[in-house]
Amino acid sequence: MAKRSFPLSKVYGLLEPGPVLLLTTAHKGKANVMALSWHTMMDFEPPLVGCVVSARNFSFGALTKTRECALNIPSAELASKVVGCGNVSGRHKDKFEAFDITQVPGTLVAAPLISECFANLECRIADTRLVNRYNFFVLEVLKAWTDPSLKDPRTLHHRGHGRFMIAGETIKLPSKMK
Amino acid sequence: MAKRSFPLSKVYGLLEPGPVLLLTTAHKGKANVMALSWHTMMDFEPPLVGCVVSARNFSFGALTKTRECALNIPSAELASKVVGCGNVSGRHKDKFEAFDITQVPGTLVAAPLISECFANLECRIADTRLVNRYNFFVLEVLKAWTDPSLKDPRTLHHRGHGRFMIAGETIKLPSKMK
Repeated sequence: MAKRSFPLSKVYGLLEPGPVLLLTTAHKGKANVMALSWHTMMDFEPPLVGCVVSARNFSFGALTKTRECALNIPSAELASKVVGCGNVSGRHKDKFEAFDITQVPGTLVAAPLISECFANLECRIADTRLVNRYNFFVLEVLKAWTDPSLKDPRTLHHRGHGRFMIAGETIKLPSKMK
Repeated sequence: MAKRSFPLSKVYGLLEPGPVLLLTTAHKGKANVMALSWHTMMDFEPPLVGCVVSARNFSFGALTKTRECALNIPSAELASKVVGCGNVSGRHKDKFEAFDITQVPGTLVAAPLISECFANLECRIADTRLVNRYNFFVLEVLKAWTDPSLKDPRTLHHRGHGRFMIAGETIKLPSKMK
């Protein structure tokens, strides 16, 4: 999938609808990936993204130590890989190999980008004040990549306990909201 | 719409998919409502919800002063009312009257609940440490109400600039994720 650099000012449109994400890290030469649903935009530009990464997740250590990661947005075709990533820990398994997920290098972070995802956001930690209490990280998106052919991606949205809503039709309304 | 009390332990399933919300407040006898897309779950139970309410929004004053609000989840049938709420400020207009939105009293907060929404969450501010820098509030959900007839609501998901994704089909996958 040939991706292009995507304007940072438009990143919010990718994350606002609430898709399940795959968060990638790399620490001491070992890459990992986890599924993530608890995230929100916090500012437009530079784009800030808040997200919860539980201290129980193996990725927590890599994220806090390297202070960087990538957020990768899968579409519904990748559902079985996403669920696979959510079901096992990187502590015990190389999830890239187990679920046939392709890593491509980032440009500004050591964390790998996932080739199969239609968008990749290279991120650096911007604020850790709420990490101790809530495992809540504020990330700054440094660089964004998207597949330009995908207009209204069929993203996955977690409803809990194995149920995922798939993004439906997009409507246009006379909104002044950015 | 006859709503029932909804278990706090299941609230995350309502918010995780990333629906547009209507946030209601009441301050000095004046109720207000705004549209909100920047939110995330932060804990399961008691449910904690993080959200950005810009200091430019009229609701910001009522929220910070009363330290409580309600989060109301509209389905796609309410799209024109949602856009209406997003387009004008409560500083100048009574949006409940302008967009024919019905208030019902909450049980634990003074903020009104929106009758037309399929779910209503009565909330109190739990943490304000990230308000000064990011306008980011951590809310605790004290009480939840839902329309029990609605299984897979057609929620609205903001893509930016007047484009809204409407929740599509729900699939079930062998996920161990809560």
